[in-house]
Amino acid sequence: MAAKPIEEGLEFIPKFDDDGLIRVIAQDADSGQVLMAAYMNRQALDLTIQTGYAVYFSRSRQKLWKKGEQSGHFQKVRQILVDCDQDCILLKVTVEAGQCHVGYQSCFYRALKKGSSKMLEFIAKKVYNPQKTYKK
Amino acid sequence: MAAKPIEEGLEFIPKFDDDGLIRVIAQDADSGQVLMAAYMNRQALDLTIQTGYAVYFSRSRQKLWKKGEQSGHFQKVRQILVDCDQDCILLKVTVEAGQCHVGYQSCFYRALKKGSSKMLEFIAKKVYNPQKTYKK
Repeated sequence: MAAKPIEEGLEFIPKFDDDGLIRVIAQDADSGQVLMAAYMNRQALDLTIQTGYAVYFSRSRQKLWKKGEQSGHFQKVRQILVDCDQDCILLKVTVEAGQCHVGYQSCFYRALKKGSSKMLEFIAKKVYNPQKTYKK
Repeated sequence: MAAKPIEEGLEFIPKFDDDGLIRVIAQDADSGQVLMAAYMNRQALDLTIQTGYAVYFSRSRQKLWKKGEQSGHFQKVRQILVDCDQDCILLKVTVEAGQCHVGYQSCFYRALKKGSSKMLEFIAKKVYNPQKTYKK
């Protein structure tokens, strides 16, 4: 399809890749913090739209994954944005608890150290104990 | 490699996919607005770290692409974050002009209309005229 309808049009035509997936970014609707990056397939996107809660597709487990199904840390979807070429989705979400399975509010809890190309530093503290949350 | 060093360690070990690419999100360091989603290869990442300006890899053109090389709308990198499994990078950037080639500040200028699964609505106004900016 030509760029014009995709970029300037009002039809939602999400572009899934060869694996049937589209990139998704979840951002805290209130704080603006980027929480995580994941993927959706068509079904996950439809379920997200229908239910109002984020559903992703897990590439490692090759299955649908309602965010929070194990941890209880759901993402309530406030707004679904799409980028110019419609191959990336941005979810503005409301969250009540830490979103990263490692225990942090955001998956982006480390930053490259200034002046280094190899060393990271922690820029956040854990907000919950994943060993308790994920103990089945 | 086991999850522990990747998720809890201090070594920056970005995980490139089978095409040698890693997902990158650019976020305005001041406003928190998510500006765009793109990809880097190893060289683009190294150049970004070395120069302090965002360099991406264009999948459509199969070449390195310094953001702003045509438009002049560069991204000055303030901080480079990486997510838990190190397969996505978040750049906190400072920008002086619109970042989307369509003319908007962010590539995410449309949202799914409430109650619809197919119709978008514009949620932003253009901040520059791309026809003037990109006229060679």
